[in-house]
Amino acid sequence: MALYVQKFGGTSVGSVERIEAVADKVKSFRDAGHDIVVVVSAMSGETNRLLGLASQIMEEPTPREMDVLVSTGEQVTIALLSMALNKRGCPAISYTGGQVRITTDNTHTKARIQTIDEKNMRADLDQGRVVVVAGFQGVDENGNITTLGRGGSDTTGVALAAALKADECQIYTDVDGVYTTDPRVVDSARRMDRITFEEMIEMASLGSKILQIRSVEFAGKYNVPLRVLSSFEDGPGTLITIEDDEKMEQPVISGIAFNRDEAKLTVQGVPDIPGIASKILRPVSDANIEVDMIVQNVGADNHTDFTFTVHRNDYAKAKAILDKVCVELGAREVSGDDKIAKVSIVGVGMRSHAGVATQMFDTLSAEGINIQMISTSEIKISVVIAEKYLELSVRALHSSFELNEQ
Amino acid sequence: MALYVQKFGGTSVGSVERIEAVADKVKSFRDAGHDIVVVVSAMSGETNRLLGLASQIMEEPTPREMDVLVSTGEQVTIALLSMALNKRGCPAISYTGGQVRITTDNTHTKARIQTIDEKNMRADLDQGRVVVVAGFQGVDENGNITTLGRGGSDTTGVALAAALKADECQIYTDVDGVYTTDPRVVDSARRMDRITFEEMIEMASLGSKILQIRSVEFAGKYNVPLRVLSSFEDGPGTLITIEDDEKMEQPVISGIAFNRDEAKLTVQGVPDIPGIASKILRPVSDANIEVDMIVQNVGADNHTDFTFTVHRNDYAKAKAILDKVCVELGAREVSGDDKIAKVSIVGVGMRSHAGVATQMFDTLSAEGINIQMISTSEIKISVVIAEKYLELSVRALHSSFELNEQ
Repeated sequence: MALYVQKFGGTSVGSVERIEAVADKVKSFRDAGHDIVVVVSAMSGETNRLLGLASQIMEEPTPREMDVLVSTGEQVTIALLSMALNKRGCPAISYTGGQVRITTDNTHTKARIQTIDEKNMRADLDQGRVVVVAGFQGVDENGNITTLGRGGSDTTGVALAAALKADECQIYTDVDGVYTTDPRVVDSARRMDRITFEEMIEMASLGSKILQIRSVEFAGKYNVPLRVLSSFEDGPGTLITIEDDEKMEQPVISGIAFNRDEAKLTVQGVPDIPGIASKILRPVSDANIEVDMIVQNVGADNHTDFTFTVHRNDYAKAKAILDKVCVELGAREVSGDDKIAKVSIVGVGMRSHAGVATQMFDTLSAEGINIQMISTSEIKISVVIAEKYLELSVRALHSSFELNEQ
Repeated sequence: MALYVQKFGGTSVGSVERIEAVADKVKSFRDAGHDIVVVVSAMSGETNRLLGLASQIMEEPTPREMDVLVSTGEQVTIALLSMALNKRGCPAISYTGGQVRITTDNTHTKARIQTIDEKNMRADLDQGRVVVVAGFQGVDENGNITTLGRGGSDTTGVALAAALKADECQIYTDVDGVYTTDPRVVDSARRMDRITFEEMIEMASLGSKILQIRSVEFAGKYNVPLRVLSSFEDGPGTLITIEDDEKMEQPVISGIAFNRDEAKLTVQGVPDIPGIASKILRPVSDANIEVDMIVQNVGADNHTDFTFTVHRNDYAKAKAILDKVCVELGAREVSGDDKIAKVSIVGVGMRSHAGVATQMFDTLSAEGINIQMISTSEIKISVVIAEKYLELSVRALHSSFELNEQ
């Protein structure tokens, strides 16, 4: 007998038929004797419909009223799912974020959860009810409706699981788990049974397609075991949890993430003086361009080269900004390349195993792949390579690190 | 400088364009220096869309969840209208029924308002904001969302006006006021500048097409001046208010209501003993058939005839029930007619003027119209006639009582 928080996204509740299927799944857990809190998103398409109405009225709609508007999407789903459960003789009760009550700060459209009152939910669970909660929303201390931003339903699920000290927060998606890498690139990619919070976060470029990274951080912070599994097929999914100290041996690396939508920009011959990095990056971030990797090497002759990567769509805009910055700083020139890709190996095991970086570079070298940039964190090594080598490098690394083996 | 509560129904907010038009109208009142609280319904079609989703899941959906579901309709409208006002530089803030807070009993889908906290609204008005409130909804004492039933937005408007001691509750509709009778039947039907609450209630069969009778009763009880006016054209509309004692002379009658969807049923030769009326009517009302007029005449030989009218759609069902009752009671027979109509003259002036009934009967008689049933209240006289005479009788009475003259 466990307490599970189960989160179903927009696709999983995208039609009345799918809501009925979710009700069947929830009921099967209930029938097995578990206590269930369900968190749901708006039916797929509904949030966009509402945003469309708002955009007909105002280009930048009042944030407070946006939250009043879009929060109706989840409210519709909780009512329909509760009905579907009641129909199955599985007593259920719905709660909006405000009804729970999930209090947030007052940053409309991207609020952060502050407290959760689990009293009502607990009372309902004790009476044998399934509790159905609207994801993605809360209220500020004055009772104004807030939303957590897109994808925020995952965060609601984790926060409820933390507040209720649930045994597991189960995130139902359209994939059956987290893979060692993208199965579309590597045939032998393997679903992982288990991955740590940190690894999942570092796998962001793969994982963010599955669940919101913010919710993984949140789960890690409160040590809520997260399980990613399929809405449509049965299976154990992937458990995201803390590092298992008792395990004799960690795999050296867990997975390979990659991102093909990158472009790199280099300001060459920059005077090597303090504050130069922010002088280069501030105008870029002021233009709302997100910067990913940043590499600056030791310079010579009091000059250095400064390189960073941006999303490929921002390449031209960033280049134009840098051309101006280059003149202002008296740098030599700006060069760039928008045909690059980033490949990362991730694993908590690399902390205790020397030679992981060497093995990675050797593997790429053996395939004749030139490494353009390198960046490392404690459990991740990322390299930038020419985009045309992406698939080749991922397959070679997947094989080299024996990820296809259990 | 007055305080107005302005209620706009589903048709008036049926599209983004119409919501923009409502915003223009509200702003014009605001610019004239008035304080404005707006009550809105769901965009037309939206409530039916939501009911459709529910009915796909359950034939009789859980009432609590129905309220969670359909209350989203108004919530969408308050957000969009507030945005449209903000865009016009007219600061506005939206409130759901729960946020106001409008507390009701816990009779889901047809709750009754118990209290209204006007504190927040008052504070917003004092700061120059337009307050936009979701009609038709509230919360019970435990914070569960409730709805007032269909058309309940009128009631919300009146209740807010009463709580705020507003100068007027303005109900915007698709007609420009209340007429002496249906203009489609009588060309010279005239828009009334003024009518009393009691008259409006007695005109129900006409008036209910314009606004909910329950809200008129509510307005009368709390003496909230109600004004019916057009969303689409400018004009003074019709003010519904208390009787004006200072006026030298009341018009004898104010208007003529009629209803062509009636059918009559008579149980003939019923033993004239106490309790017979309820013995006849209970099985009818148990079958959820609404009874309108009831007439029982003084009998002879310890037997009497008992007649009542029902909606024409219920005629066959009611007849079948009465055929059984007839046998049980030892009555002679059941007769009926589903080709009848009811015509009523209404006016507070008839209290003090003798001869109104006589004038009505004379007028009908002069046209050769036979009166089948008569029923009277203090300010209304209703007759049942053959349906084919409906238009003729309404026109004759409209002319006889000089309703076309101011």
